[in-house]
Amino acid sequence: MKFKIAILGAGNVAWHLAPALESAGHEITEVYARDISEAIKITERLYASEAKDDLDFSESEAEIFILAVKDLAIPEVADEVILPEGSILVHTSGTMSLGVLGYSSASYTGIFYPLQSFSIGRKLDFEDVAFLLESEDEETLQKLRKLAKSLSSMNYVVKSKDRKAIHVAAVFASNFSNHMIRISEEIMRRQGLDFDMLKPLIIEQISKALQIGAKNAQTGPAIREDYQTLEDHHSFLNYNESIAEIYRLISQDIIDS
Amino acid sequence: MKFKIAILGAGNVAWHLAPALESAGHEITEVYARDISEAIKITERLYASEAKDDLDFSESEAEIFILAVKDLAIPEVADEVILPEGSILVHTSGTMSLGVLGYSSASYTGIFYPLQSFSIGRKLDFEDVAFLLESEDEETLQKLRKLAKSLSSMNYVVKSKDRKAIHVAAVFASNFSNHMIRISEEIMRRQGLDFDMLKPLIIEQISKALQIGAKNAQTGPAIREDYQTLEDHHSFLNYNESIAEIYRLISQDIIDS
Repeated sequence: MKFKIAILGAGNVAWHLAPALESAGHEITEVYARDISEAIKITERLYASEAKDDLDFSESEAEIFILAVKDLAIPEVADEVILPEGSILVHTSGTMSLGVLGYSSASYTGIFYPLQSFSIGRKLDFEDVAFLLESEDEETLQKLRKLAKSLSSMNYVVKSKDRKAIHVAAVFASNFSNHMIRISEEIMRRQGLDFDMLKPLIIEQISKALQIGAKNAQTGPAIREDYQTLEDHHSFLNYNESIAEIYRLISQDIIDS
Repeated sequence: MKFKIAILGAGNVAWHLAPALESAGHEITEVYARDISEAIKITERLYASEAKDDLDFSESEAEIFILAVKDLAIPEVADEVILPEGSILVHTSGTMSLGVLGYSSASYTGIFYPLQSFSIGRKLDFEDVAFLLESEDEETLQKLRKLAKSLSSMNYVVKSKDRKAIHVAAVFASNFSNHMIRISEEIMRRQGLDFDMLKPLIIEQISKALQIGAKNAQTGPAIREDYQTLEDHHSFLNYNESIAEIYRLISQDIIDS
């Protein structure tokens, strides 16, 4: 099943999603951004899509309208957009509820949330993206499932409350594990040491966690309750109060759990 | 250059290191553990090594003695072991100093620290292990370099002070990123959700961090300074004070750095 789709937004998600949808055989009719030059940056990646900076889509041929703007802009854009009869409006946010689209002119609403960390300019295989879907209308949900399946084999129908839990879990698994690596980079840089020597360790640790579960994969001074090393490390970090406190708190949580 | 090597210890490191050294062409003459059945678990993985539960190595043919016991047991075993003339004693710890071997009967001492997360039963390619080496004796250092090179292309001569920094950095990059995944698993389990949906996200995030650096790879509500989502997530986590505090502290550190 091929859809005609309009994209509202020109950020990381739009940059990745629009060409992927086109490659999957769908037609991107329009791309909207408040600043038209931003919309053009996306349409330039596509075959024949119109760049727009106004929210009047009453003449659009699209059936599905994907709202891929910043979370805080979702309610405003949803309220202002003028959509044709029978249209489906979805947003791509991990945190915003379905209700936030409730005052829009869409006939149907839903959520089409790609659970992935998007960065402009970095190639990404959508096969590796789990889509979290939601709609109160069964037919809309089926269409969103078909749309997701055209991109990836991983799709899940998830209620807003669960989507929030998943988003919190994703912040820990992705943003926070990334920040642990960031702190590690800083410790190495400060000492004039080559961060590359840690890369095999990180790859092995994460592979192990994903294979046998992070509980079983844990090693290191905290799980061994090696209090002398914990004390040593904590003193070593006293040049940065915040990092020292992060060290203490996570070590304690490893010991307690 | 092939060495005759004795292994003292029968934990994760010994379990991995002994067969790898043998595969690289070295000879493992003996394996010591306080409990001989533990030593036998290692010698069973080898061609013809003697399992021992006493520390008298005066008749050993080995030149290099690798002390792979728990950190806290290192000083005691180093003090008690009886070594032949001309022997090199090294330990495999990321935290203990070189000085801790100073009262041993070894002619030379050093450090042979494999920077990796070892779990018994899990296959590991030593090509992916960085070895951190140290010795005050130049000839010993050259021998340790040759030994490390026979296993891996990554080896670094590192002073004890830098080794401590590397170990702290490794705790963040490996143990703590693992714990972030652990917390994420718990959040999903608590909600009855399938953790598998997060795996592609984790793989993409870590790959990105290792390629472009974790600073550039960061995404999510904290780096966007999306305070409403941070507040929401923090309230969501109020069933567990420790995890809520970890959420707050790391988010703040992402914002500040």
